[in-house]
Amino acid sequence: MKRIAFLLVAVAAVSGVVASSAPASGDADAEAAPIFGVKIPHGYRDWRLISVAHEEGNLNDLRAILGNDVAINAYREEKLPFPDGTIIARIAWSYVPSEENNKVFGRPQSFVPGPPPDWYLQFMVKDSRKYAATGGWGFAQFNKDGKPADEAMHKTCFPCHEPAKARDFVFTRYAP
Amino acid sequence: MKRIAFLLVAVAAVSGVVASSAPASGDADAEAAPIFGVKIPHGYRDWRLISVAHEEGNLNDLRAILGNDVAINAYREEKLPFPDGTIIARIAWSYVPSEENNKVFGRPQSFVPGPPPDWYLQFMVKDSRKYAATGGWGFAQFNKDGKPADEAMHKTCFPCHEPAKARDFVFTRYAP
Repeated sequence: MKRIAFLLVAVAAVSGVVASSAPASGDADAEAAPIFGVKIPHGYRDWRLISVAHEEGNLNDLRAILGNDVAINAYREEKLPFPDGTIIARIAWSYVPSEENNKVFGRPQSFVPGPPPDWYLQFMVKDSRKYAATGGWGFAQFNKDGKPADEAMHKTCFPCHEPAKARDFVFTRYAP
Repeated sequence: MKRIAFLLVAVAAVSGVVASSAPASGDADAEAAPIFGVKIPHGYRDWRLISVAHEEGNLNDLRAILGNDVAINAYREEKLPFPDGTIIARIAWSYVPSEENNKVFGRPQSFVPGPPPDWYLQFMVKDSRKYAATGGWGFAQFNKDGKPADEAMHKTCFPCHEPAKARDFVFTRYAP
């Protein structure tokens, strides 16, 4: 029996069943994003809320922006630039109508998080020395299985954030 | 000087300047919502995220749903009914386009939190004995100044939530 259990675990690990059951969270063996080497930070889903947003167009998602304690404190104290150690997490879900909510409202008006898109998780990590070439920020994107996006995608992060230079390259404002 | 300072505080209090600067948070002197007697819970803005949503129509808002530790644990363990002590907070902001984000995307696609609407804050508080007549839930709504909505409004809460009886009268599902 013990041997069978061991084999099942081994098979699951090799086939990726275990690896794909949930995003890795800062695990030593989790895959790091290219260029910046950022891994999914442990416990990010427990972080406090910075803001929310809806992106239309090709993205068509609902998103929550969370921050670690350093990020939340910097936002609330309106401290710019963000101090080293700041991590901002962006979780995106596909934008879907809620049939059950709409039944109650009597019309189609309610939109809620659906299945995670390929750009499920993004992180900005502040380390002004390590990431001096990109405004002090390291960037990373992961899908729902914890797999990072490719190098070409990660090359687009900083150029896209450059217009927000006056706010230390961060688009999201704190929602009170 | 001391006398002048005292007078300034007194005038500010009487004129409502102090009271309107921020929502009260579980303060002893904060106003309780009618019918259910619920006050704004202390520290709710630091609670963890349950989900987000966009409501169109008359509401036209972006919202975040947060939960205290009892709520978050119940959601993650898929525990129904929610245990006594659960508090669910719903923060709503008006739904506005982000001009600065749209400039970067090159088209109008980004919607972010704007000024708080009259229905800024809502809370559901689980106390199966105290609120036995309304499914075990007390309901409360407050505006940005911490002022509760009137009794007529609070009478609409439970009837609206009744269709969600199978999920203990809670519409919001946990967003992973």
